Amino acid sequence: MTWDILITNIKGLAQVRDNTPSVLAGSAMAELPVLENAYLAIADGKIADYGEMQSLANPSADQIIDAKGRFVFPSFVDSHTHLVFAASREEEFVMKIKGASYAEIAAKGGGILNSAQKLQRMSEDELYERSLVRAFEIMKTGTGAVEIKSGYGLTVEDELKMLRVARKIGRETPLKVKTTFLGAHAVPKSLTKDKYIQLVIEEMIPAVAEEKLADYIDVFCEEGFFSPGETEQICEAGKKFGMRPRIHANQLHRSGGVQVGVKLNAISVDHLENIGEEEIKALQSSSTIPTALPGAAFFLNLSYPPARDIMNAGLPLAIASDYNPGSSPSGNMSLMVALACVKMRMTPEEAFNAATINTAAAMEILETHGSITRGKTANVCITKPIPTLSYIPYSFGAQLVDQVIINGALIG
Amino acid sequence: MTWDILITNIKGLAQVRDNTPSVLAGSAMAELPVLENAYLAIADGKIADYGEMQSLANPSADQIIDAKGRFVFPSFVDSHTHLVFAASREEEFVMKIKGASYAEIAAKGGGILNSAQKLQRMSEDELYERSLVRAFEIMKTGTGAVEIKSGYGLTVEDELKMLRVARKIGRETPLKVKTTFLGAHAVPKSLTKDKYIQLVIEEMIPAVAEEKLADYIDVFCEEGFFSPGETEQICEAGKKFGMRPRIHANQLHRSGGVQVGVKLNAISVDHLENIGEEEIKALQSSSTIPTALPGAAFFLNLSYPPARDIMNAGLPLAIASDYNPGSSPSGNMSLMVALACVKMRMTPEEAFNAATINTAAAMEILETHGSITRGKTANVCITKPIPTLSYIPYSFGAQLVDQVIINGALIG
Repeated sequence: MTWDILITNIKGLAQVRDNTPSVLAGSAMAELPVLENAYLAIADGKIADYGEMQSLANPSADQIIDAKGRFVFPSFVDSHTHLVFAASREEEFVMKIKGASYAEIAAKGGGILNSAQKLQRMSEDELYERSLVRAFEIMKTGTGAVEIKSGYGLTVEDELKMLRVARKIGRETPLKVKTTFLGAHAVPKSLTKDKYIQLVIEEMIPAVAEEKLADYIDVFCEEGFFSPGETEQICEAGKKFGMRPRIHANQLHRSGGVQVGVKLNAISVDHLENIGEEEIKALQSSSTIPTALPGAAFFLNLSYPPARDIMNAGLPLAIASDYNPGSSPSGNMSLMVALACVKMRMTPEEAFNAATINTAAAMEILETHGSITRGKTANVCITKPIPTLSYIPYSFGAQLVDQVIINGALIG
Repeated sequence: MTWDILITNIKGLAQVRDNTPSVLAGSAMAELPVLENAYLAIADGKIADYGEMQSLANPSADQIIDAKGRFVFPSFVDSHTHLVFAASREEEFVMKIKGASYAEIAAKGGGILNSAQKLQRMSEDELYERSLVRAFEIMKTGTGAVEIKSGYGLTVEDELKMLRVARKIGRETPLKVKTTFLGAHAVPKSLTKDKYIQLVIEEMIPAVAEEKLADYIDVFCEEGFFSPGETEQICEAGKKFGMRPRIHANQLHRSGGVQVGVKLNAISVDHLENIGEEEIKALQSSSTIPTALPGAAFFLNLSYPPARDIMNAGLPLAIASDYNPGSSPSGNMSLMVALACVKMRMTPEEAFNAATINTAAAMEILETHGSITRGKTANVCITKPIPTLSYIPYSFGAQLVDQVIINGALIG
């Protein structure tokens, strides 16, 4: 047969799995299978074949890419982002450097409500155009599938607007997109929390479901935001419409977010800067995937999630970017892998597994994404010439993803 | 007249100084002059003119670059690197993640002696070719001038080899290069420390001077390496041959490195992770420039230098990359600026001043580099479209330097 793209002379084809794996937990995360001196064939947007170069006889392909000295690995799956937003918030970053407290920034209209105000004033078309730039930005740094949350709308219309934009990115770009309704991200100033929760449950969720705009439901379960009880109430309302929960948990406090996530059978609990034995024990009795967001811990100068404790407990661990304008203004997954290694003491193998297979599991797309497996979507990164895969997190400042193929096509 | 390059419609031309400034200290670091809606003209490799777009009449140039929505700033000056080395050391990075101690890594041939062994076995030509790749890598991320140290040779011939390679990079690339003899980087296993110091002073320094290979002399003043007394002895020997000292000081301990640097009238003392009031007081009575290397603090998980204390004491502060294969495998100065802001609480203005004017002062090239001033070398960075200059450290994962001009020519 004639393939569409044939990548030859690959120094190391990483994350090769003949069979689709399940989420990787504990010590299984330490292994990252790498095929040396390999080829990879792509046809009809899928991974058609791979193997050692010496077994490649009479190759025929429309396009041949010589990957001499380069590694190829499945594109990153970023299972936690707020990619759809109106504008950056570097002015708050500077205020924080100058010593302003969270309360002072909030008093000056900062924080989530700042993003909400900017987004509410922006047309759906402009919001799409701005978000599209970011979608291509993350594709170029190697992300092939992404979860996108609402939560800067905070009104029925604006939450719908955000989710429509997220869905449109999924339709109009090569990115695989899953969407999450996060109406309970903050309480708008115009309403009491009770009134807002009522709005979320009685109006937003049904409206979101009516337009089939959300795959998941999320709540910012945190002191000062939404309590575990409120989180449960909101997520149960979403579940009735088929939205499985994924929870913002334990970022700033041991808030009970992990436990409520487990109780709700959440697909994932994300952040986890503040967890201990109790939360780890709760996770051990569940299929909920713990997810670390090292970009936010880096940018907010928080302690990092206890990755080794999580893995030593036999649990899986996923790594996502949390790309958002307030607490993690980066969607660069290579850098998240570097932070995981430098700051969370994960090995490069563990970090790559966390950012591909485990995030694919956290997005329920492991059948099609997250590994080099025949028949899966052809989403791969081709690196610059590098000596080893470990060189990527080691060279923490470098952009070493050189070419990206999504759905079998090179991203320009 | 006809200019070689005219950059038009610049959203913000940053670090514009009509007169060559001196090193910026204390509160003066907070100001970064920016000319909005500006042009910049380049002729004969120099900055020929600049001003507001409205004052640009009948422009004539061989090449016009439209910088709409973009910022332009002087290219970074990186005043502390070990750019010439044989090979990366990501295997030690992984060993450290897995819990190996410094002593265990050293016992397995790791550390500076690992780099020395690899470099000693490599021909001068191959060492040059490998270092050249890194020289272009840092140019592409916006560095226009760089200091390069020896210190992985540790024999007379190999120290000379390193410095010849560094000088050749200065001749054969557009980079402005200054070189530093750092024979006293570590003690080779074959010699006692006393014997090695004797070799450094009696053979290496005269041989380096004979070939005019070093502008400066440096010593790794640190517990377990070289004491303040040894540092003084070695630097005095270098000074006799015209090499002004610059010192590795106070990275791991309060070793007295800062004080000996001040005593020696060093141009700079670099690292400073472990300093307090006493060291700051010593610096206040000197013209020695304190230099922070945030990449190393990040990568080794050390505390960062007390930048605010240094600036509050009315001192200057410079920021360099420390690019080297062991403790800071990145020469990306945008990322160093981001680390300075996120981790050392420097404002974006302070960090840009620290990485341009103050590092130019620390390399004694302020007459030609470090600011947008008529007559200076035309070394500038053109960013991607960004809303503000603060957006660069805020978007810590992004490569926002889009085009780089060095000596008046675009780097491909």
